Amino acid sequence: MARVYLDHNATMPLRREARDAMIAAMDVVGNPSSVHAEGRAAKGVIERARAQISDAIGASGADIVFTSSATEAAALACAGRGLQSAAVEHDAVAAWTSGDLPVDERGKVTVSDPERTALQLANSETGILQELPEGLAVSDMTQAFGKIPVAFSWSGVDMALISAHKLGGSKGVGALLLRQGLDVEARIKGGGQEMGRRSGTENVIGIAGFGAAAEAAARDLAAGVWDRVAELRNILEKAIEAETKNTILVGNGSDRLPNTLCFATPGWKGETQVMAMDLAGFAVSAGSACSSGKVKASRTVAAMGYDDTVAASTLRVSLGPDTTEEQILRFADAWLKAERKFHAKAA
Amino acid sequence: MARVYLDHNATMPLRREARDAMIAAMDVVGNPSSVHAEGRAAKGVIERARAQISDAIGASGADIVFTSSATEAAALACAGRGLQSAAVEHDAVAAWTSGDLPVDERGKVTVSDPERTALQLANSETGILQELPEGLAVSDMTQAFGKIPVAFSWSGVDMALISAHKLGGSKGVGALLLRQGLDVEARIKGGGQEMGRRSGTENVIGIAGFGAAAEAAARDLAAGVWDRVAELRNILEKAIEAETKNTILVGNGSDRLPNTLCFATPGWKGETQVMAMDLAGFAVSAGSACSSGKVKASRTVAAMGYDDTVAASTLRVSLGPDTTEEQILRFADAWLKAERKFHAKAA
Repeated sequence: MARVYLDHNATMPLRREARDAMIAAMDVVGNPSSVHAEGRAAKGVIERARAQISDAIGASGADIVFTSSATEAAALACAGRGLQSAAVEHDAVAAWTSGDLPVDERGKVTVSDPERTALQLANSETGILQELPEGLAVSDMTQAFGKIPVAFSWSGVDMALISAHKLGGSKGVGALLLRQGLDVEARIKGGGQEMGRRSGTENVIGIAGFGAAAEAAARDLAAGVWDRVAELRNILEKAIEAETKNTILVGNGSDRLPNTLCFATPGWKGETQVMAMDLAGFAVSAGSACSSGKVKASRTVAAMGYDDTVAASTLRVSLGPDTTEEQILRFADAWLKAERKFHAKAA
Repeated sequence: MARVYLDHNATMPLRREARDAMIAAMDVVGNPSSVHAEGRAAKGVIERARAQISDAIGASGADIVFTSSATEAAALACAGRGLQSAAVEHDAVAAWTSGDLPVDERGKVTVSDPERTALQLANSETGILQELPEGLAVSDMTQAFGKIPVAFSWSGVDMALISAHKLGGSKGVGALLLRQGLDVEARIKGGGQEMGRRSGTENVIGIAGFGAAAEAAARDLAAGVWDRVAELRNILEKAIEAETKNTILVGNGSDRLPNTLCFATPGWKGETQVMAMDLAGFAVSAGSACSSGKVKASRTVAAMGYDDTVAASTLRVSLGPDTTEEQILRFADAWLKAERKFHAKAA
């Protein structure tokens, strides 16, 4: 039976539009820094993608600096600035910020000094959304962009991080959005690309895909694709709620992404669940993807006040625009079967 | 008439093998950090490419850290180490090193303290090769890799920088080679990818193309493709030598890359020549590609003792594995015609 991919917050399959744009860009020979026709054509591919992304995220008037990932954009935006954050931030932001801002039991972060704070728009594990205060220094919009309406220029945020592969572009492409007039210190120097903010020959093919994916994601969003996805997510959530006794639905009382479901079955390690589901043909995740393959207790879930046993027992199911009801019902069936087996064994 | 691309040192057209590998990788859905089957498949694509590159550059036993460019690899290898260099280095290395090592009139750099020095293997503008002293801290092998035999593990060099798009892979992909046991401080932190040396979800598609391009480049090299290219380069060089009076052939008495020709026509700005040739249907370059489109006097040529007029009047023609004799003869004809026009106007 075909495998079912329910890990869209880790990475989304490449959209058809991104694929086509990337294949077309493969025939663009020049270096975007070269002044001849081939170079200008390559530069044109980048600028078209920049315009597509600007339209998709409402960043008119803002600067878009292409990077190799939202992680690189986080380093550009956050390093050396002494910013505060909460424990719910992604490791890429947490690496450069001190993370002890208060988080309530619904996952909401209290910000006291926006101009010195980094705050995500949506959490990758729970999908919980934050209200971004006016004047916020940095927002990680990676998980939100493409799934909910985002208008950078109206957000009141100084800088934002976005990623191509979270909305159907290629892995290895991201961007930093900068409110006009702001600047960052380059961390990669040399040729002076991206207005000197980020040197190195640009990933023309990947950037072309990012532009096309952003455009397609905005179109899907406007067409209500994620409303349908939210309905499927809710079907799964209700099935789990109805059929289990001690499984905790994390974040379901909060505003959250339409595609994300996080639930903890205390004592049944998330890692074990992921492997059991993998064997059964389903790709899901325990917390955020972690480079080493090791899975730790979720910082995000712990920050909401759950104990370590709960935080180590979470599973994340994240749906995509092409997820079907049949897939969701099949997953619910397989997971509930495994859950009963776990409790039978534990008893 | 079809345009002729003679700017392979700026960037090389995507090789067929790289294109195929990239398109195949587009169907690999997972995040390489995910533990499920889809994640492991993506990880497998990266590790296969790493092995292909290791084979192609003789880096058995060394570590290969994938980056977004050789420029990023240069920052990883050089930043904060107080390394010395010569004025012939690329901006990406020059940005982090102090560049006043002696360069002789043949372009050779004298290194006094290898362990505190960065030295390129081949120059992008002149093609001039350097002998790398044992124990050299960093070598930029970007231009050499794929065009001449390079064996990193036998080179006695601690760290080397390489780039995919200089040998027919995608722009926006590079790597740092590290002799086993050495380490670098991460500049992009977060998920801990690439053994913690370089965080951020990997550019799986681009990396797949890098591996395939490196393998194809090694095969071409072994098959003698660049010997044929050198013959074409020499035909062009002899035509220029025979038909001009005061054009200076830069570096033709030195060991150099088989595909590169650098020549100066004093008083005729390189920038002007590039634009004249572009209009005539040829993509060539004045010095190395420069992000802003502005072209400065060549630091490399000036370092060899030529005056500023000469250094501002250089043209670089760089051939590729598919360059034909017909293209070279057509270029020689067009350039010599423009050169006569320049002298007629100047007279």
